[in-house]
Amino acid sequence: MRYHPLLVAALASLVPVLAAAAPLPTPEGILAAAPAGDWQALEPADTLYMDLPKGRVVILLAPGFAPKTIANIKNLLGDKYFDGSAIVRSQDNYVVQWSQENKAKKEAKAKLKGYVEFERPASPSLVRLPDHDTYAPQTGFDGDFAAGSDGKSEWLLHCYGMVGAGRDSAPDSGSGVELYAVTGQAPRQLDRNITLVGRVVQGMELLSALPRGASAQGAYMGFYQKPDEYTKISSIRLASELPAKERLRLQYLKTDTKSFTAYVEARRNRHNNWFVRAAGAIDACNIPLPLRSAPN
Amino acid sequence: MRYHPLLVAALASLVPVLAAAAPLPTPEGILAAAPAGDWQALEPADTLYMDLPKGRVVILLAPGFAPKTIANIKNLLGDKYFDGSAIVRSQDNYVVQWSQENKAKKEAKAKLKGYVEFERPASPSLVRLPDHDTYAPQTGFDGDFAAGSDGKSEWLLHCYGMVGAGRDSAPDSGSGVELYAVTGQAPRQLDRNITLVGRVVQGMELLSALPRGASAQGAYMGFYQKPDEYTKISSIRLASELPAKERLRLQYLKTDTKSFTAYVEARRNRHNNWFVRAAGAIDACNIPLPLRSAPN
Repeated sequence: MRYHPLLVAALASLVPVLAAAAPLPTPEGILAAAPAGDWQALEPADTLYMDLPKGRVVILLAPGFAPKTIANIKNLLGDKYFDGSAIVRSQDNYVVQWSQENKAKKEAKAKLKGYVEFERPASPSLVRLPDHDTYAPQTGFDGDFAAGSDGKSEWLLHCYGMVGAGRDSAPDSGSGVELYAVTGQAPRQLDRNITLVGRVVQGMELLSALPRGASAQGAYMGFYQKPDEYTKISSIRLASELPAKERLRLQYLKTDTKSFTAYVEARRNRHNNWFVRAAGAIDACNIPLPLRSAPN
Repeated sequence: MRYHPLLVAALASLVPVLAAAAPLPTPEGILAAAPAGDWQALEPADTLYMDLPKGRVVILLAPGFAPKTIANIKNLLGDKYFDGSAIVRSQDNYVVQWSQENKAKKEAKAKLKGYVEFERPASPSLVRLPDHDTYAPQTGFDGDFAAGSDGKSEWLLHCYGMVGAGRDSAPDSGSGVELYAVTGQAPRQLDRNITLVGRVVQGMELLSALPRGASAQGAYMGFYQKPDEYTKISSIRLASELPAKERLRLQYLKTDTKSFTAYVEARRNRHNNWFVRAAGAIDACNIPLPLRSAPN
């Protein structure tokens, strides 16, 4: 029988290498063994449900990093601003972007005040990674988001799936009326240049697999050329707006737990019968936030 | 007028900052000014055309890194092995994978010898980057591919768009009958664990935007569940098999040129009216190989 190549790599491990004492833990084994208290239900007031024709994208907001921009977004949600909006851009290996294209709705919010929430003061709550990062003096997790720090300030990292507030040339022009999500190799050059507001925790494939917008030689940015190429967004709602029984019962693994530390180590150095060499290091953007449905 | 957010970031720069002497060069300006001799036509004998229903994917092979595996692939192409093959897997933020699913054709090559071409001796031809990398002691470009080195050996990096030969648990089981391309955040843990054979230089969006294979909870690997979900590959041909006039006239910027060094620097530290802070560093996987159609 021929196995599927990369199979064990993708699973991270089904067959741990036998060590002298006990098999080394696998990422999956660590998640399965994590105590209930290491899992955290998504806060309904900070969870967005973005409904597309093919399904739902779930976004966890980061109010600890971008409180003003997120307050703007919540006000927009209160006005149902994003109902009937659309994904208007998909640039390969970069971002998708969505906005309200209805002229009246758009103009009503065109002067909404934007903010510069590119970084915040450094915090002792950053759970530091020992790994060297190309872009930041220090990386780690804080408030369950991958973050960078230089000892003075702290900022969210532009990892795959991160969501931000698009802006014009003026740094304070990102109000939240246009949002983007990273769909490719982490564009870390954007760190501290634009406000990140959260991350997609479920349904990412509904964004990442969208057809790319047509390429214009020399100025390719992935904007669709015609409105009929848009992906319609029927609505974006806060989970807290829905009755409790209609909310998704999702939990993520808290990053300040021993389980998370062990999970990261098991991904940093994979021990199974597929790998011939453990990496010995890991990029913060190669650490997805473990998510599960709450057990019954 | 409202500009499209991230617009200038995507363009890298239309409006250079005015410096004391002259405007700092932009990546686009550098490419436009690069002398003809800095551009290299793709070697037809090392260029693959993979034809899908929606278009053509162009892959540049790296025979300097994986000569035996590539010899296998060329032999398979000679047998038209990949005609009527299919993309059978699309795992979000990881890889797409293709193989021949016709039982008779598949079994005929099932025992094709595989090779371990995970690294090669270090070479002075590596054009080194000054940037710190999380995974490799040194990174740079060699033979126009992003590579890592520890001073003794050198290996290709699993960047977005890189193509490799899938393998089973046995390290030498990757013969070239199943190939994959990276479609997400660089899975650098695979470096030196599997043989990379080249990179997609055009048509990447035909692979990256494919629907993801269905998720099975706990063992998600993106394999399609039913053959009718496959994307058919009508053929894979070497450009050299086609008459010269039917070949694409593509050129890439040679990485051992001053133009390439300047291009990387302009991407490392972006100077335009959108960025408020230059990154000061760049990951080798954030440097796409500049490609153009040969001027007439």
